[in-house]
Amino acid sequence: MSATTSFSPRDGQIAGSVPDTRPEGVTAAVARALEAAPRLASVPPAQRSDWLRGLADALDEHSEELAELADKETALGAERLTGEVGRAAGQLRFYGEVAREGSYLGVTLDEATGTSPRLVRVNRPLGPVAVFGASNFPFAFGVLGNDTASAVAAGCPVVVKAHPAHVLLSVRLAEIATDTLDRAGAPYGTFSLVVGQQAGADLVRADGVAAVAFTGSQSGGLALWRIANERPRVIPVYAEMGTINPVVVTRAATHRMEEVARGFVGSFTLGAGQFCTKPGVLFVPSGHGFPRAVGDALAEAAPDPVMLTRAIAESVTGGLGDLFAAGAKIVRKVGGTHAGWSAEAAVLTAPIAALRPGSRLLEECFGPVALVVEYDTDEELLSALTRLQGGLAASVMTGDGTDPDAARLVDVLTRSAGRVAVNDWPTGVAYTWAQHHGGPWPATSNPAATSVGAAALGRFVRPVAYQSAADEWLPPEARSGNPWTLPRRVNGRLETRTAEPS
Amino acid sequence: MSATTSFSPRDGQIAGSVPDTRPEGVTAAVARALEAAPRLASVPPAQRSDWLRGLADALDEHSEELAELADKETALGAERLTGEVGRAAGQLRFYGEVAREGSYLGVTLDEATGTSPRLVRVNRPLGPVAVFGASNFPFAFGVLGNDTASAVAAGCPVVVKAHPAHVLLSVRLAEIATDTLDRAGAPYGTFSLVVGQQAGADLVRADGVAAVAFTGSQSGGLALWRIANERPRVIPVYAEMGTINPVVVTRAATHRMEEVARGFVGSFTLGAGQFCTKPGVLFVPSGHGFPRAVGDALAEAAPDPVMLTRAIAESVTGGLGDLFAAGAKIVRKVGGTHAGWSAEAAVLTAPIAALRPGSRLLEECFGPVALVVEYDTDEELLSALTRLQGGLAASVMTGDGTDPDAARLVDVLTRSAGRVAVNDWPTGVAYTWAQHHGGPWPATSNPAATSVGAAALGRFVRPVAYQSAADEWLPPEARSGNPWTLPRRVNGRLETRTAEPS
Repeated sequence: MSATTSFSPRDGQIAGSVPDTRPEGVTAAVARALEAAPRLASVPPAQRSDWLRGLADALDEHSEELAELADKETALGAERLTGEVGRAAGQLRFYGEVAREGSYLGVTLDEATGTSPRLVRVNRPLGPVAVFGASNFPFAFGVLGNDTASAVAAGCPVVVKAHPAHVLLSVRLAEIATDTLDRAGAPYGTFSLVVGQQAGADLVRADGVAAVAFTGSQSGGLALWRIANERPRVIPVYAEMGTINPVVVTRAATHRMEEVARGFVGSFTLGAGQFCTKPGVLFVPSGHGFPRAVGDALAEAAPDPVMLTRAIAESVTGGLGDLFAAGAKIVRKVGGTHAGWSAEAAVLTAPIAALRPGSRLLEECFGPVALVVEYDTDEELLSALTRLQGGLAASVMTGDGTDPDAARLVDVLTRSAGRVAVNDWPTGVAYTWAQHHGGPWPATSNPAATSVGAAALGRFVRPVAYQSAADEWLPPEARSGNPWTLPRRVNGRLETRTAEPS
Repeated sequence: MSATTSFSPRDGQIAGSVPDTRPEGVTAAVARALEAAPRLASVPPAQRSDWLRGLADALDEHSEELAELADKETALGAERLTGEVGRAAGQLRFYGEVAREGSYLGVTLDEATGTSPRLVRVNRPLGPVAVFGASNFPFAFGVLGNDTASAVAAGCPVVVKAHPAHVLLSVRLAEIATDTLDRAGAPYGTFSLVVGQQAGADLVRADGVAAVAFTGSQSGGLALWRIANERPRVIPVYAEMGTINPVVVTRAATHRMEEVARGFVGSFTLGAGQFCTKPGVLFVPSGHGFPRAVGDALAEAAPDPVMLTRAIAESVTGGLGDLFAAGAKIVRKVGGTHAGWSAEAAVLTAPIAALRPGSRLLEECFGPVALVVEYDTDEELLSALTRLQGGLAASVMTGDGTDPDAARLVDVLTRSAGRVAVNDWPTGVAYTWAQHHGGPWPATSNPAATSVGAAALGRFVRPVAYQSAADEWLPPEARSGNPWTLPRRVNGRLETRTAEPS
């Protein structure tokens, strides 16, 4: 019988092993989820919000134990991981509050007119969601991360596939989740975990699964997307994959070179560069010595990265080789001295002319590796930006309010990125109402979807319009009396929580 | 050089012929659209609303001429077609008003807190949209139909592929559109038309195209969806295809048998049954003689259908053969007496046990053909409903407010349909705020998208979050002063059009 084994990245030793879920186990998990689905869909959002708050409290309670276990499997550090447990708990509460507020239901009511019938549209949960969490955020994008939290908030049961890089943590989180949900009275089947690569593929193929949420590599996300597209009933795959996230330094910002260099190094080496929002390329005005300044800042910061997995550590080395082959030159490298899954952090530079269509320099190199590219003219900068793949995030580092290049660069960057930061680095994704963590293909599989922020719930619902239906035959959210006091649009006019007597 | 030829369905004679667009013509149309895109995206929605109103006025002005030309190519009848011109004009005005109202921009603003930066999210237009209209609604879903109107309203230029069934009308509509938009001052490239099947495929492959909107058959929609999925940069395809739309008659409604039978015949023979919302199967309590009643109503109505194209006429004959092979029996057939693309209208019946998984009886038969299926038990009814493909619409015909089966059937039908009508037939799709014209795969390629109603604009935008950006570097819709007085969510709270001084 096959099993999934995780390793301690610091020494490469086995951390533990978990038996893979057999095909009948996947079938059973999906069947449980399908049975739970109608009840999840019919309880008020406030009820699901309470369950999510219970999960958040449970995370906080077990914070120390969980961070310790996660550190053993990921080497991301106890402090960062303890913070991330808190973040995941905050997310669970946030998505619950978003559900409770009720705008995600999109309730829209048009009274009958002489020419059109009465119509009420509400968003209904899609059904069981298969969740594939990320290696690099074992809590925030893990078993109880953004995808699970927003899916349950929207009324969908989840079946999570354990990440092989932290399979022990995944199992422990699943125990906590199952126990907490059970005690809170959530339907049996609201949450399940499956283990193993084959189980993951079986899950995406399972007839009862209604959507897939994935955070991770392009190869992994696209593999699931292809499987889903070959199903008899094709289902949406929300794959958040990430690409290279460009940062542009304007001419008016060159006087901040040292600060920018330090900030860039801090951002691209954060978490050993294992962020989907890692800035992979810094475009800088030529002639100011930016490449060397960034190299010096790297030497000063002197990170000594340990990667999450052997495969990632190897891909950093391989990626560096690819970048050299594509015309990049090393500016500075440091680290790589540990046992286990150690890697070097490196700053490279390349002539802007080398960023030709199809060049490897235009693509992400996962890990603590970044490129500094000097530009002379606006034309060559804009032309290079146009050639980059669509991205999750981009930044521009500007001068003061009179910077003549800022507005145009913000506009240009929005054409290929889901988030544009000004004088902020792209790493760091707040979970708020306005957040958008998505972007054009191939950063994600769906340019309009976000995996962070209030709109994340929107991935897991579809509208249903009820035509000429009497109130008593409708679910509460669609009734004219508005028993759940939801924000609605009535006859075209937005109403904010003005309940009529029901 | 190849050409597209349309025919007069009533006699099968050639109506006219138009040269196909060469590859360089497609490239030029996309280049024009790409050049127009930033200007379309940056004008206030009210400006685009004015352009759409101009198009609507132009349709009304040319109503008689257009309906006559359409009738020559489609045989749908001058009265219906004149009405449809008016509907298309109304749609153009409606989508413009939706844009002007501004909720579609989804403006969301979170002020900075101690832990998170200032974020403003707004929906931005995707860019050039390729539009493939339907054969069966030459105006409402045609060159200036729902897709074109909602795409332009959302700020996207369109390149429309002419439908071969009414290519003369497509060219005439394009002349009117180009002329009207030009005179209104819309950017050159806002609207283009291409002709020919190869041009359509080239269009979906064109790098500059950002999304595809399609209304038509499953084979056509899925072909475009596959092409789009093979692009280096995959783009969303919003294909509205339609399946069989079930209608259930409850036990408490059997006393209305004659009325239901007449209504069903009226609905499934409307437009010669060439509606994507055509009710394809009527589930009725057994033992009341429903099949014969529907057959009698068909004989009484005595339609004599002429189909849009030779291919559709042949598919009706072929579809009938398939249904017989799958276990259906004829109850009554009439018509089929014309020259040209004539077809028989037919009522069939089949034992409910014949609706096995994979049976042809579960799928759409386009044209004036419908199935009446008797049920004995709730179990066999629910089991058959579960086996149907996801659909655009479903109906339930009930008794009075005490009907014990109504609420449960409404709930069951919402699980596989985008719209559920009570005591209304599924044909007829009002364009209002609450409308949803979409549904689970394979009724559409995207279960959350609608091609009719205010939410249709949402297909053609993607969110962008601006982080820590000064107001003067943001587009007007994202500025804190709200210069366009848009409905917004600020710090989590919905605000309806409360402009601050800017």
